[in-house]
Order: sequence, then structure tokens, then C-alpha cells
Amino acid sequence: MNKEKLILVSNDDGIDAKGLKTLIEVASRFGTVLVVAPADAQSGMSHAITIKTPLRAKKLKKTDTLEVYSCQGTPVDCVKLAINQLLEGRQPDLLVSGINHGSNSSSSVIYSGTMSVAMEGCVNQIPSVGFSLLSYDPEADFTAAGMIAEKVIKNTLENGLPEGICLNVNIPYLPFNEIKGIKICRQAKGLWKEEFVKRVDPHQGVYYWLTGYYLNLEEDSDDTDEYALAGNYASIVPINIDLTAYSAISKLNEWKF
Amino acid sequence: MNKEKLILVSNDDGIDAKGLKTLIEVASRFGTVLVVAPADAQSGMSHAITIKTPLRAKKLKKTDTLEVYSCQGTPVDCVKLAINQLLEGRQPDLLVSGINHGSNSSSSVIYSGTMSVAMEGCVNQIPSVGFSLLSYDPEADFTAAGMIAEKVIKNTLENGLPEGICLNVNIPYLPFNEIKGIKICRQAKGLWKEEFVKRVDPHQGVYYWLTGYYLNLEEDSDDTDEYALAGNYASIVPINIDLTAYSAISKLNEWKF
Repeated sequence: MNKEKLILVSNDDGIDAKGLKTLIEVASRFGTVLVVAPADAQSGMSHAITIKTPLRAKKLKKTDTLEVYSCQGTPVDCVKLAINQLLEGRQPDLLVSGINHGSNSSSSVIYSGTMSVAMEGCVNQIPSVGFSLLSYDPEADFTAAGMIAEKVIKNTLENGLPEGICLNVNIPYLPFNEIKGIKICRQAKGLWKEEFVKRVDPHQGVYYWLTGYYLNLEEDSDDTDEYALAGNYASIVPINIDLTAYSAISKLNEWKF
Repeated sequence: MNKEKLILVSNDDGIDAKGLKTLIEVASRFGTVLVVAPADAQSGMSHAITIKTPLRAKKLKKTDTLEVYSCQGTPVDCVKLAINQLLEGRQPDLLVSGINHGSNSSSSVIYSGTMSVAMEGCVNQIPSVGFSLLSYDPEADFTAAGMIAEKVIKNTLENGLPEGICLNVNIPYLPFNEIKGIKICRQAKGLWKEEFVKRVDPHQGVYYWLTGYYLNLEEDSDDTDEYALAGNYASIVPINIDLTAYSAISKLNEWKF
């Protein structure tokens, strides 16, 4: 392994998250690590950026091989600040995000701060991978997830990634010897249902809590991330940052304006 | 025109934005309109959702053909609340978002609250279109943008949209007779550069303002949204909610784990 590699690490669960600690540890086996993570948990922040308030970064640690900052901002703010300021012009060989506490499979990719970190790295032409574990427990055991992450990082550094494509890796919450392998998949079609609980406050005001359950719209397909995860495989979905639906262009050209 | 259509309208600039007023006016020509928009401006919020605080919606207006709510949440919260609560089970024929004050062309689509509204509609199987005007001026003239929006809405209602695909419409800031037409495009490859101004506060604390300029990485291509807009055309990019990079799957299957 080449210890000269420079690896940028961030997440959306915040600087104190257990999953981040695991990812830093794994990334450190491959090279020098710069961590820039949100000071607070930022789940569900997607690709949000901070425009109206200034950002601050706090240096928490600096050794020859590891530098750690927390940032009062969103996950994407962290990546932008790292690339444009804290890296001082150095181009990372890899960006890794997570390991997220909770799944980012299927359509969750569009809400996910973890994957927005990876997509922001990809926009900036850095090979980028987001990792998520299928447990929301803050005290979850990340041992197996770290072992899967190591395999994916090794392959990404060795093989590179096509331009404009990053990886969405989801890992079942199982001991390593019960994870059957790693499958390359497509994003399952699905959505969230019954998303709100409606309540009335003591002053008769109505309020709503976001909640609900995930509905897989194609349970019979065997090439989706949901299918792989249900079968105790880790899933890798290659993700495009070019969202253009090329298949629709000729149809739309028939429209009469 | 069929006045029986039900159209859901939202945005990310907030309930008081001039661009929203124009879009409500245009949508009202096609049917009954439900507006659920953020109480405050939410630019740059992307696909963020509110998990840790409850949401409230305030009914601002109700006639036979128009119902207006503001919501203390993100743009995507507004869509979710509309679909799951305020529509009381009715399925809209169309969702329109905007008209945004400012461009959402090229890679801006991944940061855009306006387009996240459209993508959330699309996840929920509603034909969905996001509109953006190339002016950040809160007092911008939306006359021409409204006329383009009307043409796109008419076509979307008549022709429908393929499943899993929504539209990203950007409109140059010009009088209507100077807009040369509407072009179907792909998303230009580009990114933001020099994104921060670094400052020191009176107490010696360093802080950063997000800023920067957009860099088009393929100025010579004539099929991108950036090219169409530079040539005074409105651009339509069909957007996939399935982010899978299918082209990369076979390559990734060669990896050795």
C-alpha cells in the first residue's frame, strides 16, 4: 500500500460519530488523512450549502499523517472548505464519506448528506465513495463495516473511478462472516410512505413529525441495492453526477412550443 | 384547457417571492392550484428534510380554485407535507417549482431547492417541472419567464413525462421577444471555483464566506444547457431520479474484493 496517498474524510453524522472514527482508522491505513466534518449531526441535509452565515473551522488535531477539523456547516460546506481552503491546493487521491449511521440505499441517495459529500467530491474530480451501515444506533458496531470499507477503498485507489461517477456503498448490519459478499447494483425504485404524524399542541396548534416507512416498488428485481442488502450482501451503486435523462431527449424534441 | 387539473406549486425562495407569484398565476390558467411554500427563503437547501423539529403549516388563502399554505420547513418538507397531509389523498396532475430567482443550470441542479422540489414530486410519481430565471434580483421582471413556463406546462400536461424523469427549465433574463426559443439540452459539466472569502473577526477568529464563480468545463459543446442559455434560448434538461451510472456497472464487476 502506498502511504503517500492523501485522503479527505467527511460525514453527515458529525465529528463525534462512531462511524466517522472507524472510517478515519481505515483510511489511515492507505495514507495521510484530512478530516473535515460537521461540528453537529446533519442528517437529512442532502446537498445543502450555507450562504447567509459565515463558516468557521476548528482544528482539533494535527500530526504528520492526520489532520482533523470540525466545521459549523453542512456536509457539503465541509467538502468545499477542505478543497478550497484547508487542503491549500493539494488534490486528494480519494474522498470517503461516512460511515453513515443508517441506510442510504435506493432513493435515499437524494436526501443523504453522506452521498452529497461524495457527489461534491466527484464534482471536484476526486474519486469519491460514500459508506452507510444499516443501523441507526449511535453505538452500533462498525467492525464489519470497516472491513468492507477497506476492501472498497483498496479497489478504488487501485482501479480509479470513471469521471463523473462516485460510489454509494451500503452495508448490512451483520458480523463480517455473515456478510455474503459485495454486489454491484442499481438503485432500487422506491419511496417513503405515510410520512407524517399529526399532533395538536397544548395551545391547539397543529404540528407534524416526519416519519414513515420505505416502500420498495420493485421487490422482484434481483439487480437492485435493496435486493442485495436483503440477501445479506453489501451493495455498491455507481452514482452519476450528470443527472441528464438522455433517454428522454428525443421524445422531448417532439414537443411543440 | 382542462380546468379540472390539480396543480401543486412550491419553491425555495419562500412564500413571498415574486417568482412564486408568477408561477401561481400561470398554473391557475390550467386548473386548481395548491401552493405549499417555505415561510422563509431556503436557497441552497437542496433536498434537505427536517427530522428533529416538528413542522407547522399556516393556511394563508382558500378559494374554490386556489389554496395557499406556508410551511416552517425546507422545500422538500413542503412537498412531503402537501402530498401526505394537505392534499388529503388527491393526486396532483402536475407539480411546478419556482420560478427560482437565479440559475439552476449545469451542476447547480444538485444544490438547488427548486429542483429538489421537482425531484421529490417525481419520486412520488407526479409529473414535475422546476423553473429558474437567470436573475438573482428579488424584484426581477418575471413576465417573459411566465410565458415560457406556460408553454412548458401546457406541453407537460398534454404529453406527460416518462416515469422517473422531471424537467429542469432555465430561462434567460431577457424580454420575451429576445428569447430565441426553447432547447432540449443535457446538463453541462461544470463546477464552482474559488469558493470562499477568508476574513478575520475583531476577536482574531477566522471565518469564511461562501462565494466563487461558475466554471463551464465544456464551453465548446453545443448541446448543453449552458450553451443554449448563452445563446439566449431557454433550456430544458430532463433529469433522472435514478442516479445509477449504468455504464459503470460492468467495469465495477471486474473489481476483486
